[in-house]
Amino acid sequence: MEHNINKHISGRFNEELESVRNHVLSMGGLVEQQLNSALDAVSNGDAELARKVRENDYKVNAMEVDIDEECTRIIAKRQPAASDLRLVVAIAKTIADLERIGDEAERIAKVALDSFTKDQQDLLVNIENMGRQVSRMLHDVLDAFARMDVQKAFEVHKEDAKVDREYEAVTRQIMTYMMEDPRSIPKIMDLVWSVRSLERIGDRCQNIAEYIIYFVNGKDIRHTSQADIEKSL
Amino acid sequence: MEHNINKHISGRFNEELESVRNHVLSMGGLVEQQLNSALDAVSNGDAELARKVRENDYKVNAMEVDIDEECTRIIAKRQPAASDLRLVVAIAKTIADLERIGDEAERIAKVALDSFTKDQQDLLVNIENMGRQVSRMLHDVLDAFARMDVQKAFEVHKEDAKVDREYEAVTRQIMTYMMEDPRSIPKIMDLVWSVRSLERIGDRCQNIAEYIIYFVNGKDIRHTSQADIEKSL
Repeated sequence: MEHNINKHISGRFNEELESVRNHVLSMGGLVEQQLNSALDAVSNGDAELARKVRENDYKVNAMEVDIDEECTRIIAKRQPAASDLRLVVAIAKTIADLERIGDEAERIAKVALDSFTKDQQDLLVNIENMGRQVSRMLHDVLDAFARMDVQKAFEVHKEDAKVDREYEAVTRQIMTYMMEDPRSIPKIMDLVWSVRSLERIGDRCQNIAEYIIYFVNGKDIRHTSQADIEKSL
Repeated sequence: MEHNINKHISGRFNEELESVRNHVLSMGGLVEQQLNSALDAVSNGDAELARKVRENDYKVNAMEVDIDEECTRIIAKRQPAASDLRLVVAIAKTIADLERIGDEAERIAKVALDSFTKDQQDLLVNIENMGRQVSRMLHDVLDAFARMDVQKAFEVHKEDAKVDREYEAVTRQIMTYMMEDPRSIPKIMDLVWSVRSLERIGDRCQNIAEYIIYFVNGKDIRHTSQADIEKSL
């Protein structure tokens, strides 16, 4: 189900909304690239790529500030109502979550700066798998945002429970490893943080899914059970 | 330095802005209480109080949703400009951070459900100290918000560096403990998470300080160095 956002009268206003939406999608693309680079850096122990992720984070931050200003300018100048206002609000919230996903990607990339023994590499594989799962979730929610597709947003919303289960499993495995090889704890803690970061990215994708549903349906579904959300769609 | 927010013409609009500000302060008070209860629960191993924190989190969530709606209604109805709009934007962002602080308090409270040996109690003492430091930071930033005091907001902003240092120290200490007593790792990991939660609360207080400065000075200072912020004040 796609939502028609081109229904108000002012053509110029239309262009402005279209432009801010495109900026969000560019920002989303950059954040996705940051996350994937971070995961690649970890997979390949590529310190160079990890540094690049770190260096590029300022671009994500700058985009958030710019889009935020754009939103405030639109509200002040166009005084949007109803669904236009909801769109601007949804965008302002979405970019805040995207910016934090960028921060998490930077944290994850740090793992690439450590070196791991063969045993520890096994832990990395699980983190990589969880990373790909979360990266797909980010891709899907950006796709849902681009088309303002509530059904797809709801799919992403449900996906987060799987990420949480994966998080529990991987964390348990890492703890077992630490118990068997306590000297490795300081290094292995970096893995713990990166798994936590992935779990948080899942939460933030879920947030973005909620903003999409809020925009399209006009209903704030935060803190609502999934069964109740499904009923409302 | 206090900022006069009562300068626009419509008396009714004035009342609405005043009302939404008061709601933010009530929400802030509740979140502060949740954090302090969580810390008390951990200090005293009070499982009952920990459960109360968990039960009360829905109130924080409900307040966020209500205030968010109030902000959207004000924008739609009053079409605020300049500093009024900045106030509404600052409020919308502030409550998002307050809600997340509430979530962190809930996570911290969980530690009260574990039981600790005498040795492990020493770790708890450090967490308590860090907790009081963060709780003071929250108190101060809410105070700065109530009076829209940029100078105080800037003090809170600087305080976060101290919390980060404390976080590093406490985490190192916990890791050392885990290395010496690996069997305790699963339980001690709960302490790791609660220290991380405290560090995040510090970040969120810093965010709120930035929104206050944004509202009063009309300048977005996120991702700006502290020296540059000081110059701009």
